[in-house]
Amino acid sequence: VLGIGDDCAVFRAPPGQDLVFTTDLLLEDVHFLRGDASPEFLGRKTLTRGLSDIAAMGARPRFCLLSLAVPEWAADRWIEQYFQGVLELGVPLAGGDLARAAKMAADIVVCGSVPRGQALRRDTARAGDAIFVSGPLGAAASQGYRHLGTPRLKLGQALRRRATACIDLSDGLSLDLHRLAEPSGLAAEIGPPPVFPGATLEQALDGGEDYELLFTADPRRIPKRWGTRIGTMRKGKAGTVLLDGRPLPPRGYDHFARPRSRP
Amino acid sequence: VLGIGDDCAVFRAPPGQDLVFTTDLLLEDVHFLRGDASPEFLGRKTLTRGLSDIAAMGARPRFCLLSLAVPEWAADRWIEQYFQGVLELGVPLAGGDLARAAKMAADIVVCGSVPRGQALRRDTARAGDAIFVSGPLGAAASQGYRHLGTPRLKLGQALRRRATACIDLSDGLSLDLHRLAEPSGLAAEIGPPPVFPGATLEQALDGGEDYELLFTADPRRIPKRWGTRIGTMRKGKAGTVLLDGRPLPPRGYDHFARPRSRP
Repeated sequence: VLGIGDDCAVFRAPPGQDLVFTTDLLLEDVHFLRGDASPEFLGRKTLTRGLSDIAAMGARPRFCLLSLAVPEWAADRWIEQYFQGVLELGVPLAGGDLARAAKMAADIVVCGSVPRGQALRRDTARAGDAIFVSGPLGAAASQGYRHLGTPRLKLGQALRRRATACIDLSDGLSLDLHRLAEPSGLAAEIGPPPVFPGATLEQALDGGEDYELLFTADPRRIPKRWGTRIGTMRKGKAGTVLLDGRPLPPRGYDHFARPRSRP
Repeated sequence: VLGIGDDCAVFRAPPGQDLVFTTDLLLEDVHFLRGDASPEFLGRKTLTRGLSDIAAMGARPRFCLLSLAVPEWAADRWIEQYFQGVLELGVPLAGGDLARAAKMAADIVVCGSVPRGQALRRDTARAGDAIFVSGPLGAAASQGYRHLGTPRLKLGQALRRRATACIDLSDGLSLDLHRLAEPSGLAAEIGPPPVFPGATLEQALDGGEDYELLFTADPRRIPKRWGTRIGTMRKGKAGTVLLDGRPLPPRGYDHFARPRSRP
């Protein structure tokens, strides 16, 4: 209804739809290093993280809001190219906030919509459900995080009322599967996931930034091309993940467990 | 419907309401200096800026999302007290993002709701409208920005269908009145505004962070206690502001016009 230029953006929610919101920080020296990535890449990356969360809810993206601290080292051309990267993904930018700072900081909010009551959650897997991943893992980690996956928006929407639980693989399978199993009150038993050509098994398990979907379902309801079955949800200690029968520690990226920089 | 802990927060929009969204950055060394303010104060300040935007739209706050880069220098107690400051204002925190970084960066999104089509805008003032401010100005500037105003949420809601345009005074009267006059295609003629005891006229005009409302209306529709009339909207060069007949330059806070630190 009303975009950039007023105190607030105004949005008229479509009737019969729930709205979903996600917010993601992208910080210089934390999520990337200056000079390590082009401004377009960083723009795409800023929004990709949020769009992947929207996909994991089975939602359709509606608009985004971008708060950006423009770094002192960035020329006008850098800023233009960064915004080009954000806008390339086709989601309307409805507003945001701008400031100047020594280092770049971006925070993106993406709003999506999903038919009422059909949002896919993490905490609703059932014992006996099959566990799927939507594609091979480890691509980003094996390429020094210079590769950017494509958010699985169409698949997420197709999984509504078919998947019992869903999460996106942004921080690594070992951590994200733990994050689905624990609130569902279940354990997960898996074999090795499909590995991206050139990536190691460790990169596929712990690397993160794959932006594939991890979901649970009755396997009869999931067409083959939607993903690869890697295991089964079981009764057991909530949050436990077993790989080939051995405990798999949640080694994916967690800011507060292991503060460190990642390019 | 679903709060912190999933990929997204889920919100069911009330029927017949438009949703409004605002996003505000609060950055260390840009908006405040470490040691200059208590964590509770910074928490309240983070949300106050957004709530004031919600007030300016005539909306009611519904929930907020907070992205926070926790600075390396902050102990757990600091973080707790910061969140206490945010939560003190009574707006449900529905989600967000957390990271560790060298300096603090917070971005808050506030969602509000307003009856369909009744959001107050900046660009809808009419020639002949009276110009009002909701209270005396300059309090924050006269106290080194250690004073925090209260967002005028009730007044904003009361102004629906009475004010013709509205903006909150976050960056200073001289700049914010320009920002209302320009998109409305009008000039503004004012006399001196009410000045907070102890503040100078310059602080009242340019200081900012007052969080009072600046609005235009037919004066017969505005009860006296809602504000002080300071002038009239006139045909003329769009965005011009005259104080006692002389041009008043938009000297309020603008990150890109005058990059500088403010405590």
